Amino acid sequence: MLKLYGFSVSNYYNMVKLALLEKGLPFEEVPFYAGQTPEALAVSPRGKVPVLGVKQGFINETSVILEYLEQTQEGPSLLPADPFQRAQVLALCREIELYIELPARACYGEAFFGMTVPEAIKEKSRAELLLGVGSLSRHGKFAPYVAGESFTLADLYFMYSLNLACGVTEKLFGLDLLDGLPQAKALLEKLHAMPNAQKVAADRDAAMPAFMAMIAAKK
Amino acid sequence: MLKLYGFSVSNYYNMVKLALLEKGLPFEEVPFYAGQTPEALAVSPRGKVPVLGVKQGFINETSVILEYLEQTQEGPSLLPADPFQRAQVLALCREIELYIELPARACYGEAFFGMTVPEAIKEKSRAELLLGVGSLSRHGKFAPYVAGESFTLADLYFMYSLNLACGVTEKLFGLDLLDGLPQAKALLEKLHAMPNAQKVAADRDAAMPAFMAMIAAKK
Repeated sequence: MLKLYGFSVSNYYNMVKLALLEKGLPFEEVPFYAGQTPEALAVSPRGKVPVLGVKQGFINETSVILEYLEQTQEGPSLLPADPFQRAQVLALCREIELYIELPARACYGEAFFGMTVPEAIKEKSRAELLLGVGSLSRHGKFAPYVAGESFTLADLYFMYSLNLACGVTEKLFGLDLLDGLPQAKALLEKLHAMPNAQKVAADRDAAMPAFMAMIAAKK
Repeated sequence: MLKLYGFSVSNYYNMVKLALLEKGLPFEEVPFYAGQTPEALAVSPRGKVPVLGVKQGFINETSVILEYLEQTQEGPSLLPADPFQRAQVLALCREIELYIELPARACYGEAFFGMTVPEAIKEKSRAELLLGVGSLSRHGKFAPYVAGESFTLADLYFMYSLNLACGVTEKLFGLDLLDGLPQAKALLEKLHAMPNAQKVAADRDAAMPAFMAMIAAKK
């Protein structure tokens, strides 16, 4: 059986978890907090989550895991069959990861965990996030899903990146990142109302107190 | 015919260009400096290079272009057929991009273009680069190529990211990023000695003066 290594508070973990649930695949969740210990690095070369455990070994990096599931597993496909349309969906995934999730991530410490992020980093993130959401407004279809008529991998990136990025811009910059993109706001709400997304959110909420205690203990 | 939009100084452009050359595919180079003009954003949603022009339209994001070429074009394959081995190569690509190229990129302005990068950003990049190269040392095979016996997409990321990242750590931190990884150093040299890589480098060198003049004019 597929094993999903990680923890329920991680947004990347939850992208893969929702993909597994939407595809109806059986999987076992293996609690794994990653980090820089030799044991963790033997599972995940950069000490990150999630990791997929399969017969042959470990597969890391969310984008790679998601494509591997598309290529090898049963269930509804989350990528178009046509190579050009497939490329558009994957480009949206990359754009959301590189130009929205990553700049937002640089500020998670201050936005969510009571740490302080240097001004220079916050300013860089703010500028990048505005360009990133501009990119999303041009490339996103929202018809009604991010890449068009059906739910795809791009929706996974969208739903588990934009919620946190919006939290960052609201808390640190007093800015509504999706101001002017009502169709994106509506989609975010719709996606998080999906039954499997609600299950993922319930698991996240249940895991949050222990995660926050772990963060506090590390400070 | 495939059209490659971008400019010869871009390391991401050169990853795709070398892939096209190695696969023996005919393509036309279209000079495109990207940026945030409406014309550029109509080609590339985030105003980045490279972009691949195909019959159906534009494909952006290097990782997506490279996979599209693998899926649709003739020539030597740069990805293994086995899904697990394919995932290992793609994970190496992502690790090099996210954990080495991107932190190095945050410092390109100071390392290569006479600008000043805030200390906080340099410190973050330095820490991330050391973790990134640690990840590469664990996941990379260097046997002799990054992912094993044959030349793959991971070598494209490696050769056009590590050269710049090494330049950044040497110039800004007096640090040899590949110290302790002689097999990586040997591979870097071997890859850049490939005939097609030398052609890519000659085009880059020829385009550099005009690019530097453009950067200087923008300051």
